[in-house]
Amino acid sequence: MGRRTADELAKKQRSISIAEFFEKNRHLLGFDNPRKSLLTTIKEAVDNALDACEEARILPEISVELIQLSDDRFKVIVEDNGPGIIKKQVPKIFAKLLYGSKFHKLAQTRGQQGIGISAAALYAQLTTGKPISIMSKVGPNKKAYHCKLKINTSTNEPDIMFEKIMDWPGKDHGTRIEMDMEGSYAKGRTSVDAYLKQTAIVNPHTTIIYTNPLAEQYVFARATDNLPPEPKEIKPHPYGVELGRLMHMAENTYSKTMHQFLQTDFSKVSPSCSKDILQHASILPKAKPKELTRDQIEMLLKGINNTKIQNPSTECISPITALLLEKGLRKEINAEFYCSTTRPASVYRGNPFIIEAALAYGGDQKSDGQIRLLRYANRVPLQYQQGACAITKQLGGVGWKSYGLQQSRSSIPVGPCTIVVHMASVWVPFTSESKEALAHYTDIMKEIRLALQDVGRQLMAYTNKKNKLKKELQKRSLIEKYIPHVADALKDLMSLNESDVDQIEEHLADILEKTRGTVKEVAEKNSEYDEAFANIGKENEKSD
Amino acid sequence: MGRRTADELAKKQRSISIAEFFEKNRHLLGFDNPRKSLLTTIKEAVDNALDACEEARILPEISVELIQLSDDRFKVIVEDNGPGIIKKQVPKIFAKLLYGSKFHKLAQTRGQQGIGISAAALYAQLTTGKPISIMSKVGPNKKAYHCKLKINTSTNEPDIMFEKIMDWPGKDHGTRIEMDMEGSYAKGRTSVDAYLKQTAIVNPHTTIIYTNPLAEQYVFARATDNLPPEPKEIKPHPYGVELGRLMHMAENTYSKTMHQFLQTDFSKVSPSCSKDILQHASILPKAKPKELTRDQIEMLLKGINNTKIQNPSTECISPITALLLEKGLRKEINAEFYCSTTRPASVYRGNPFIIEAALAYGGDQKSDGQIRLLRYANRVPLQYQQGACAITKQLGGVGWKSYGLQQSRSSIPVGPCTIVVHMASVWVPFTSESKEALAHYTDIMKEIRLALQDVGRQLMAYTNKKNKLKKELQKRSLIEKYIPHVADALKDLMSLNESDVDQIEEHLADILEKTRGTVKEVAEKNSEYDEAFANIGKENEKSD
Repeated sequence: MGRRTADELAKKQRSISIAEFFEKNRHLLGFDNPRKSLLTTIKEAVDNALDACEEARILPEISVELIQLSDDRFKVIVEDNGPGIIKKQVPKIFAKLLYGSKFHKLAQTRGQQGIGISAAALYAQLTTGKPISIMSKVGPNKKAYHCKLKINTSTNEPDIMFEKIMDWPGKDHGTRIEMDMEGSYAKGRTSVDAYLKQTAIVNPHTTIIYTNPLAEQYVFARATDNLPPEPKEIKPHPYGVELGRLMHMAENTYSKTMHQFLQTDFSKVSPSCSKDILQHASILPKAKPKELTRDQIEMLLKGINNTKIQNPSTECISPITALLLEKGLRKEINAEFYCSTTRPASVYRGNPFIIEAALAYGGDQKSDGQIRLLRYANRVPLQYQQGACAITKQLGGVGWKSYGLQQSRSSIPVGPCTIVVHMASVWVPFTSESKEALAHYTDIMKEIRLALQDVGRQLMAYTNKKNKLKKELQKRSLIEKYIPHVADALKDLMSLNESDVDQIEEHLADILEKTRGTVKEVAEKNSEYDEAFANIGKENEKSD
Repeated sequence: MGRRTADELAKKQRSISIAEFFEKNRHLLGFDNPRKSLLTTIKEAVDNALDACEEARILPEISVELIQLSDDRFKVIVEDNGPGIIKKQVPKIFAKLLYGSKFHKLAQTRGQQGIGISAAALYAQLTTGKPISIMSKVGPNKKAYHCKLKINTSTNEPDIMFEKIMDWPGKDHGTRIEMDMEGSYAKGRTSVDAYLKQTAIVNPHTTIIYTNPLAEQYVFARATDNLPPEPKEIKPHPYGVELGRLMHMAENTYSKTMHQFLQTDFSKVSPSCSKDILQHASILPKAKPKELTRDQIEMLLKGINNTKIQNPSTECISPITALLLEKGLRKEINAEFYCSTTRPASVYRGNPFIIEAALAYGGDQKSDGQIRLLRYANRVPLQYQQGACAITKQLGGVGWKSYGLQQSRSSIPVGPCTIVVHMASVWVPFTSESKEALAHYTDIMKEIRLALQDVGRQLMAYTNKKNKLKKELQKRSLIEKYIPHVADALKDLMSLNESDVDQIEEHLADILEKTRGTVKEVAEKNSEYDEAFANIGKENEKSD
């Protein structure tokens, strides 16, 4: 075969539609196997329902139904009581990839990329050839909009196969999604059952009614009528903003001067802070942002990094809270010690975030295996790709031996322990579009390590106390063992009678009690443990 | 805060440009930290250069230069002797994401998504604000085209900042890329040095001249003038083709009948095989593909799965070959035992693939740590995300204890051993766009396991032999120890003199030799080990 020229090779060059790209790479979106595909679909639908309800300030009530149609085929139905979606937007939201409202704002939401639910539609269409069916109603006195959609993969645009305006009796507002897809259902750690249970734990304002393919129905009733505080949309924090982004912001700002630009386009920049930054950057406060050269922007960046700027505010972030994380553990695991921590807000690439962690030790937990790790991001449980996650990496990196667990070099520690870690942020960086593992950003890694070390130290305090107690009990039993012998010896020495001996033994026991103090049990009693709840999704764990 | 309506929420919905998406998610493309970003950039540039040379049937000669500009800033220069790129295509190839020639064809290439090099340009622009510079020449008598490009992130279209037609003296054809970016350089397992060395090992037809930021120059000269056989572009194999894809193919085929469609649009479907499929599917051979209903396509799929179809041909796949994998290990590692295996071609989702593996045991390798795993996909070394890779998962899943290594449940085995695994395919499924780990497709997982078990069994044969030898040597030394005592006893019994005793000892030794055979050393001598080569990229390994 002879050489080919650049001209010949050029003929094959062309654009790739994002829908084609993800159809071929569906594993990137969490659709690599039938079991995971089912979970990913329900996860995307439920995450969207929760986001929509919270944004509209409605207490969420979500119904999830999974019906097995044949060996490898399922019908997924998810219905919410959210604000509904107006007719015009329905096709794009469900049948166009990279379309949505959450990507362009800095606010904490579960969805963020505008890919998830349309990816599920793409997968359904790929595996069954069937369109996705949507019904949506935006108010009590409105009609509902019902349609069936396919994605045109060559253009990444929706094809409306069928549409109708109709009544939806008994429904004030909300959205219902139905789709048929290839799938596989099993219980276990990565099951739909486990996902919904974990979701219910960290979203106590939500009611979820779930019917699984075995026709078992679980009602996770809401535990509070208070919606979580609404996460505020924010401006980027100056720390970590990249040069390119800074250039883009300066070009597109409405501010006339640099002094104004820094104060209005960023969070936590006061007038005096702005002055400091500009002084460090050798830029005049009156300079026009649009006229800055690349080199000046570079100096601005250095100015920012050389100026002390207040930490980002936490009101843009809605953590689960350490208390609730710990409560979740108490409900799920019967342990002897619980603790938790919330780190102060930090920043990576200009985005504020918070890491929280909780730990449950001992009790019913197995002591001969690796500890159990539960990961969450923006209140969503992460069930796959544990090996790829920054949390897992840091869990191995902390020295757990000194905290009372076994560990061989840099691997997951071994012992009767469960650890939960949650990252809340206006933008969570995942290692893939399937949103299963946190990317390894240095600033995030550091906060995770500090949170783990914090619960680790609390664990150490407990295990130390426990070890001390154990030693004390050993000593006491030793002394108690010798009391009769001492009494016996005294009897011989002082020629006492038997009744005196009994008295002496009592006296000696009293002295022991007084000098060594009373022994307090250190293990907690956990009254919140709910065995039936803990078993949801667990039945087949062995086959996992 | 009151409730929000669907109308209010709808206002924020909009499309997201793929460039915006990846700018915000740059870690998805392998740009999560400065060190990795440098590697990813060079990797994308070199992979593209190799693909272009091989497609044009030119023996590749690639120069890579890394220059440190400041603490955290580098200039990356990659130049090849490839066919060059025509003027019109240059901007889109380097400054538009999802654009390329490899996505739409089923053939084994390193690049496949049309994202890599433009992602590097996006990262360079984000971290330094500077455009990427390209020079390309398509023939000896042509002028070169030189341009500087930025990506407009809102539209995902190239902005040409500067362009010029000019001479490129001394260059017949080829492409030169220059870009400034934030980075960090260090040696070690995940370094640029290690990447280029591993690339040179599995691409012996390539010359790479590499100058690192320490001004150390390495020349990896080509070891053969034979280009690897050109991987043929193929049709999909019927096994594993999804319903949606089948519908799409049937709608868009030029074939008039189903009988013709199956034979021309798929590989390995003979006329008799086509008849079998159609019979199993209860579809008439004369049926028109475009008129098939969804239900008929579903039956066709069942028909395919119930028909025995020939394995995919391997000529579309260009494996490294077991021999070369093993040779690479011999050059790099001074071990006592080497083995390798190539699995027959298999199929996942209609795409043929081959798994190869090689193993080096003992010798200079440390025996107290986890074994070393080297992963390759389509001749490209995979250096990150080991924890997320299907290969790692399967390595843990195989029971290595029976093959002679230590292993605690499902983790990476421990021992003096290196294992290489290569997947070659017309479409490699990665867990993210950064192409660092293989996705967990069942069919691929199975082949990896079988390949690992194969080298495992060869290792077991060796370790058994070695153990036998060890026992034999122990026995011999025991017997030899007693020979003088036996001779002494005989002397006393038979009243012999000293010289007879010596003779008896010799006789006894002879008998021992004859009855137990001579002992052969089982460990190999490796004459191919090249210490200087092995040390490239290793110097700072401890700081890794």
